[in-house]
Order: sequence, then C-alpha cells, then structure tokens
Amino acid sequence: MADHHLGTDSIHTVWDNSLPPALTVRPGDTVTLGTLDASDGGVARRVATGELEAPPELADVIAAGLRHPRSGPRGHPLTGPVFVEGAMPGDALVVELLDIEPAAWGWTGCRPDGIGLLDAALGEEGLQPYTHFWDLRAGTHTDFLPGIRVPLAPFPGVIGVAPGATGTHPTSPPRHVGGNMDIRQLVVGATLYLPVEVPGALLSVGDLHAAQGDGELSGTGIEMDGQITVRLGVEKDARITTPEFVTPTHGGSSRQWHVTTGHDPDLMTAARIALRPLLRRLQARGLSLEQAYVLASACVDLKISQIVDAPNYTVSAFLPLDVFAEG
Amino acid sequence: MADHHLGTDSIHTVWDNSLPPALTVRPGDTVTLGTLDASDGGVARRVATGELEAPPELADVIAAGLRHPRSGPRGHPLTGPVFVEGAMPGDALVVELLDIEPAAWGWTGCRPDGIGLLDAALGEEGLQPYTHFWDLRAGTHTDFLPGIRVPLAPFPGVIGVAPGATGTHPTSPPRHVGGNMDIRQLVVGATLYLPVEVPGALLSVGDLHAAQGDGELSGTGIEMDGQITVRLGVEKDARITTPEFVTPTHGGSSRQWHVTTGHDPDLMTAARIALRPLLRRLQARGLSLEQAYVLASACVDLKISQIVDAPNYTVSAFLPLDVFAEG
Repeated sequence: MADHHLGTDSIHTVWDNSLPPALTVRPGDTVTLGTLDASDGGVARRVATGELEAPPELADVIAAGLRHPRSGPRGHPLTGPVFVEGAMPGDALVVELLDIEPAAWGWTGCRPDGIGLLDAALGEEGLQPYTHFWDLRAGTHTDFLPGIRVPLAPFPGVIGVAPGATGTHPTSPPRHVGGNMDIRQLVVGATLYLPVEVPGALLSVGDLHAAQGDGELSGTGIEMDGQITVRLGVEKDARITTPEFVTPTHGGSSRQWHVTTGHDPDLMTAARIALRPLLRRLQARGLSLEQAYVLASACVDLKISQIVDAPNYTVSAFLPLDVFAEG
Repeated sequence: MADHHLGTDSIHTVWDNSLPPALTVRPGDTVTLGTLDASDGGVARRVATGELEAPPELADVIAAGLRHPRSGPRGHPLTGPVFVEGAMPGDALVVELLDIEPAAWGWTGCRPDGIGLLDAALGEEGLQPYTHFWDLRAGTHTDFLPGIRVPLAPFPGVIGVAPGATGTHPTSPPRHVGGNMDIRQLVVGATLYLPVEVPGALLSVGDLHAAQGDGELSGTGIEMDGQITVRLGVEKDARITTPEFVTPTHGGSSRQWHVTTGHDPDLMTAARIALRPLLRRLQARGLSLEQAYVLASACVDLKISQIVDAPNYTVSAFLPLDVFAEG
C-alpha cells in the first residue's frame, strides 16, 4: 500500500479518456492531490492587478499563492487522471476521503449574468458583480461579517472518472460518472463509489469548497485551492449506474432554521420562489443584496419537501440561524 | 388566552373562503384539532371489509377507530376553518405547533398508477398495490420489519389558510397560502407563518404524518389520525408571499447515510435517477420492491445538491442507515 502525491502541474480542464494518466496506483494505495480553485488562479490574479479589492489582512496570503492562469480550454482545473490498476468497465471505483487541507483563503462570487439560481431576477433589482473573500485560517469556521460565522466542512466540488464516450467533455455539468457534482456531504469520512467506464477508471479531482449549502445558490461555494487525500479501491462488477456514497453527515447543524417555501409545477421555479424571501430576511438584517446571495450560497440548503402533490411540488430553503452570533 | 377544541365532526374537503368558520378565536388562544387520516377512514374500512389485510396485532386498534368514509368532494379531510380575530389580508398568521398526539396505527401505500415519484417506472417492473401498516403505540419509533426501525417525528401534512380567490380549490396541491405542503420539519417546536388573504385567515389542518422523508416518495408518508394543538397569533402587515417557518430540526439524524445521486437537466428526472438505485440497495437487503418504495417514502430525503451546473442539476437521495439495527 503506497502513498502517492500529485501536484498542481498535473492539471487538465476537460474530461477525456484519451488523456495520459498522470499517476498509476494499485488498489489500496493512497493519493494526495494538490488542487487549484475553480477560477484557476484568476481571482487571485485580479486581486494582484487591483481589479478586485481584497481585505488587507488577506492580501499577503492571496499574493503567496498567486499563479498565472493557464490558457487553453476553459473549465475547472482538475488534478489527474489517476489510473487504478485492475479497475475495469462494470466495476466501481471506491474513493475513501481521508483528509482535506484547506487553503488560507477562499472566495464566493455572484453576478447578474452568471449561473446562479436568481441571477436574472436579482439582476433586474440591480444585483452587481461581487466577490467576497473569506479568511479560512481558523480552520473550523470563517467570519462573514461581524456576528455572522459560517462553519467549514470542506469537500471536493469536482470528483469523477473519465466517461466511456470518446472526445472531450466539458467539466461544468456533472454526469453519471461524477464530476462537478457539488455535493456538500462528500466530506472527510465519506466513501464514494463511481461507475468505471474505461480501464484504470481515470480519476480526477478539483474545485475544493471550504463550505457550501445544498444547492450552491449563487453558483459558487467557498472556492479554494487545497489538498485532498484519498484511498482508492475497486469493487469488481458492482454495476452501479450513477455515483453513490456513504457519508457521516446529512448536512449542517443548527439549533434553529429559518425556512422559506416555494410551491410550483416546476421544481426549478419552486426553488426560485423559496429562495427570494430568504434573501429578503438576510437583507432585513442589514446585508446588501450581493452579501445575502453569497452568504446563502455558502450555507443555505435546498430540500425537495414533496415531489408528489401535483400539480405543485415543494422546495424549501433552510437558513441555519446559528450563523448569527445572537442565534 | 382561551383553550379551544375542535373535533372531527368539523371537516371539509376543499379550500373555499366562503366556508363558515367552525370556531372563532383571539390571537394568543390555543386550539386542539382532531384530524382524520388522508384516506378519510377509507383504509380502516377496507381492513374491516377484508379488502386489505392488516397485521393481527393491529386489528383491534384499527377497528376501534373505524368510521364510514364521507361522501362528497374527494380531498383531504381538513379540520376547520378557524377564524382568528384581527387577522387581515397582508398580515401573517402565526401558528406555533405545541403538541401532536399520534394515533395507535398508521399506513403507507404505493401502487403502480398513483402519484409516487417512480410509479410508472416501477409499474413496468411489476410493482403491485401495497399498503403497509405501522404500529405507532411505542410513540417514539415504529418497526417496519425485524431489524428495521423508523423514528417518529409527527407533523401536519396539510396546514394552511383559505386562498383569497373565490370558489373551491382542491386540497392536493399546496400553494402560496400553504395547504398540502408535506414539509416534515413542521414538527412540535416549529412556528409557521402563513400569508393571510381573507379576514380571519381561516386556518384548516389535517393529514397528520407520523414520519416522512423529504420528498414523500411513494406519495404517502406514515398516514394517521391524530390531534394537534397550536397557538395562533397575528403579525400585522407582515407582507409575506409564501409560507415561512422557524424549526428546531433540519431533518433526521443518523450516524451514516447511503446516498445515491441523479444528474439531469430536469430536476424531476434527476430525482427519479437518484431514487431508483437506492431502492435497489433496499431490495438487496431482502425487501420486496413495494416494501423498498414504502420504506423510502417514510425515511429517505431528497436534497437539491446543486441547481447551477447547467445543463445538469443534481438531486441526492439520503437513506439513514440507522434504520437498520446493524447500523
């Protein structure tokens, strides 16, 4: 059982089963992978050039990690692929998440023309492009504004294996072999099962998040560089059809939650109806529209409360009230 | 501050703001409402006629509550309406959930042509109509099969106020004034805020569930008769647009969860993709297809993991492994 390390010089930005393996391991081996943030260093670079303003206390740590963003196809920078000996189509790749080392800082953004759930609606209300910088050095939590604190629960935003279909596949959409799933319960202690479609499985990982709510509402979690350690195994002939995992967590904890609800024939619309009044609750506490949206992305959970009471289905948005110092 | 009681002779089966109030109360008063199960006694009656077989140990308690189902419009039997003095359009009706007394037994059903999330797909696999009976007399949990135990967390499946629009409105779909929301976090200790659209608000409640997962996957939770006690208040000019609530719970607790994921442009399809392999996991433990579906409806949670990574969005289905005695 060997321990391997793969650094950030091994990066690709598309899924493609013809990419040469950056590392070959045996079942039972562990691998520590260095990963880059979803902007591929772009946010840090915009701080360096003065295009974005970061809090003074974070300027040094941002500068310390500064890199030139790469050129080439735009996509999440992914570390890999890792070839696992013996993994064959029909098997499941077993990924035990052993450790995640967060970076010293992270960011969450929103803009009126991005991918966020309410970008269009909030754009009409005057939403401005905004990037919030988080100080992650406490390790267990991060302060948003005075009196507002978000607990950290780091996980990989992107983790998957190469699709069996040839050619290049964009990193943005997750698919049946995993990828950009953004599932916040994939924390240390979880074990992920991915359907293998090509020999060696070809695992890649990237886009670590320090925290995120179920939904990733503004389109970004707390994005960061980082380092993740996994143990890899193979379950022969598992015949799974979609990523599955076992996890020790159901989500966040809080003594109380403020919940808003949406009821609509379309679940996407129901989610939008649920989220808007929750942002209003945050604005009523003095947050700007942008701050409300970004904080929600970091800690508000979307649940499907019922998916059977046609013609209206119910999505509920859960705000953990413990993020506020006064509870 | 008076305490009122409203029995099950005050029942209606549609929403209609012209229904005469069954009770008038003042803000601060408490009301205990007797409620009937969603089948309006129909399931108990089918046991009495021998159409459905119930476990021998439950036959007596089912017989004890036997009623003749009412004729008239089909819909959830609702207790109310309760007129709250001073509640006016634009206000929020504040409903504090003080107590829920469960019944001695409950039921969960599935069928190939019902409203459940996978009815059509499972029908093709031979899903049969099935009704499971639960013994609720332990009060804190209920045994499904030997070694499988579901914790109870009772809540009202239907709770809402009369819509402002005239005429009759079916009880099945929830809407912006509440109703059949089936939100399992509306437990004792929660406070619900409903948008008032007519003078007096006209609150009605029914369809108590002893337990349910986020989603209510087979179309029914653990359906039961029961009794619920609420304290009613009015928040003047609250101008809420959709039901909101504060709750002490985010969902169930378990030491571990088995999670299956679905990734698709349509959230409904993503939910179906996520649920099917989870049922397979339950079948692999020896449950019939019908038992797997019904157990999932009682305890599996659907979450929207991400709603931003177009073109595919991610729904995850969480099975609490603590329901199994072996953990």
